[in-house]
Order: sequence, then structure tokens, then C-alpha cells
Amino acid sequence: MAEEKKKKVSMVVISGDMDKLISAFIIANGAAAAGFEVVMFFTFWGLRALRKKGPTGKSLFGRLIGWMYGGDIERAGPSRFGFGGVGRWMFKKMMAAKRVPSLAEMRRTALELGVRFYGCTTSMGVMEIPREALIDEIQACVGVAFFLEQAREAKVTLFI
Amino acid sequence: MAEEKKKKVSMVVISGDMDKLISAFIIANGAAAAGFEVVMFFTFWGLRALRKKGPTGKSLFGRLIGWMYGGDIERAGPSRFGFGGVGRWMFKKMMAAKRVPSLAEMRRTALELGVRFYGCTTSMGVMEIPREALIDEIQACVGVAFFLEQAREAKVTLFI
Amino acid sequence: MAEEKKKKVSMVVISGDMDKLISAFIIANGAAAAGFEVVMFFTFWGLRALRKKGPTGKSLFGRLIGWMYGGDIERAGPSRFGFGGVGRWMFKKMMAAKRVPSLAEMRRTALELGVRFYGCTTSMGVMEIPREALIDEIQACVGVAFFLEQAREAKVTLFI
Repeated sequence: MAEEKKKKVSMVVISGDMDKLISAFIIANGAAAAGFEVVMFFTFWGLRALRKKGPTGKSLFGRLIGWMYGGDIERAGPSRFGFGGVGRWMFKKMMAAKRVPSLAEMRRTALELGVRFYGCTTSMGVMEIPREALIDEIQACVGVAFFLEQAREAKVTLFI
Repeated sequence: MAEEKKKKVSMVVISGDMDKLISAFIIANGAAAAGFEVVMFFTFWGLRALRKKGPTGKSLFGRLIGWMYGGDIERAGPSRFGFGGVGRWMFKKMMAAKRVPSLAEMRRTALELGVRFYGCTTSMGVMEIPREALIDEIQACVGVAFFLEQAREAKVTLFI
Repeated sequence: MAEEKKKKVSMVVISGDMDKLISAFIIANGAAAAGFEVVMFFTFWGLRALRKKGPTGKSLFGRLIGWMYGGDIERAGPSRFGFGGVGRWMFKKMMAAKRVPSLAEMRRTALELGVRFYGCTTSMGVMEIPREALIDEIQACVGVAFFLEQAREAKVTLFI
């Protein structure tokens, strides 16, 4: 029953908060640069990290979710001190001042380093986010079985 | 010192948010269905997932916690867009529309699949939640040592 | 490519919430007492757990962060029911009543048990928290590569 653990990192990203996404991408890119295989599963609010701009949802609730939680990765605000967008603006300014790449840049680097992105079919269904609302570069939309296949052979698995 | 890692998933569930509990149970049930042994440790707000209806707590604080955080797993609201219960109602409606089982149904399935539930004695003490306030189906109320024994031999451990 | 997994626990602590810090330190101290090597990486709001009292930051944003998120580990409030400090006061009272050590005591015990603390250089830079603002007992301020070196050989890794 013993399997060899691969040099792999797997993550479930349920949060769409700026600080948590920054942590997720810094770990992903650091791991990929160090030769790890990296797979990221985005679910619920974390799907923002894969969103294109533009509306989603057809039902009342779907449109509400799209309206309230609309926007792409650049719209992610910090989990504390959001202040209706001021927190996000300040964090972006400070990151630029310290030459920390933006979330959109981190995501681009992740793709260049071969990090693989997956959307969670269940939460996409519930929140009415269709495949077309996500960036083209994702590998696939998958269910929990696929995640478990990856996680079981990963050295490090994080729920973010 | 090398131990063989079992085909096991362990989780600490500290959150009582609807979306995080859904993720926890989907992963637990998917893992159990795929033949993993699954153990879930519920602590702090996560204890809601094990709560029966009805009051808890005798001190002022205990009663306040019970009053503000009262209710069972069906009272869990989303971590975003709660809107005083409207978010929960909308998520439930959408889940039903997409034929995603409710949290109570997911928990029942978990028990049928042999997932084991544990309550955290420390947080139960601090929050004045007695054993009788939790569903009968839990295995035991345990401390951190028990969790570590499980986690050290698990292939995947999540903090949710 | 197979490495032997050490008897080690590694954590990323991104949260500065009282309940999450309590969980992190209870797991850390339980693991250390059971003979595990334990390493904790504090980032973003989690840096509060390593903060001395006193101001930080020179820029407007840095001073704002210091002012709004000022204070040390004893200022951490619960992730729910903060009520402008009342929740923190109540939790402290209940913890004392149940003879659960305070966060400051848990941190002291962790150090006595040999748990190693690290600050995250990237978030310290962005949030303008200098090394001098953190307690003397931390090992070092490190980047993601160091965390990954620890996590890859840990039996259990948590993102808190």
C-alpha cells in the first residue's frame, strides 16, 4: 500500500482574498522554480483567480454572485482592512514599491513555470460560473476524485 | 524513523462556514468512496457541523456563544455574502437546483461511508459545548495528541 | 526521488485570529511534546503572533497598518464575534476559567519545547514590519524556498 511520494505540491484554493492568493502563488511559483510539480485546484471564491472579466450567471442568484463578486484576479482585496477597495489599492501600491509582482503577474509566471490550474466543477455549477468565464490556460474543470489522485502523491498539500 | 503512510486523509475543521464545510465533506466523502480511511477533527466554529439543535452553555459567555452561534449544520452560512441569512438561503437553493446534496445529507453520507468524526475537547471546554450537544454518531471527544497520531500516518492532512 | 519523511510538522500561519493562533500553538506544542520537530512560518496577519508592542511602518500605509493592526499576540481577537474587543475579552475569560493557557503563555511554552519560529520576508516588506518589531526569539526571516525545504520533509504541513 506504500506509494512513493513524488516531488509534488497540491493546493485547494477556496479563498479569493488578496493575501491568501498571494501566498498561494508565491508557494506555487517557489515550488515550481525548485523543481516541484505543482497543481492548484480553485473552488468557490478562489475561482476569482481564474476569472476573466465580464458577467456570469443566468439565474437571479447567479447574476447576483457575478455582480457582487465580479471581476478578475486584480479585483481581489485583502481579507482584512478592505475598506471598500482602499485596502486593495494600498496593498497594490506597497507591493509595487517593494517590487513584489502583482497577482496577475504571479499567475502569468506560474503558467510559464508549468503550474497546472484546475477549476472545481461542483462550485462552478452552484455559483453558475461557466468554463467560458475562466481563463483559457486552465487544464480542465475537475471533481474531487481528480484532486485526491494528485494529493495522495504530493509531498505537500495545502488548503488555502 | 520512516513510517509507511497509510491511505488516510485527516482534517482539522475549524470553520463553521457553509462553503468550507461543503468542501470538507466533499473531500471526505470522495476520499472515503475511493477507499481512503478518513478522520475529521472539529474544533471551534467547526463544531457546528456536529451540533444538535438546542442551547448550550451555562455561563453568560457560554449562553451568548450558544445564542449567537446556535443551530446545527443547516444554519451554516457562506463565508462571504451572508446577508443575514439570505446568502445561506440562496446557496441552498442553488445547490438543490444543481442536485448537490445539502450539508446534512453530506454528513449522513460521510457516516455511511465510515468517515470518523471527533470533537476537540479544548474548544468544547472554552466554548461550553458539552458532549450531549453533539450528534450521537461522533467517535469521541479528543485532544491534540490523538489528532497528531492520525495525521502522522495520513497521506493528506488539511486545515479547513 | 523518494525521501524519507522526518518526524516533523511545518505550518504556514497567515491568520492573526485568536482561535486560529490557539489551534496553531496547541498543535505545535502537542507535536513538540510528542517528539516532533516543529517549524512555524508566520506571514501577513499571522506576524502579529511574533510582534512586540510598539509602532511599525514609515510610509502612510505602513503607519496605517501598524495603527489598525497594532499590538502583539495578546491583541488577537476571535475570527467571529469580535464585537470591538468584547469577544477577545470573553474568550480570554473562558480560557482562564478552563485553565487553558493564554496565547502568550502558549508561545512561551512553544519556545521552551524548541518550536522554531520564522517570519516571512515578503509580507514583512509589503506591510513594513521590520525585524526589530518582532520578538528576539525568532530564528530568522526567510523566503518561500526555506519553507519548502522544511515542508517537503515534514509528515504534516498545515496552512492556518
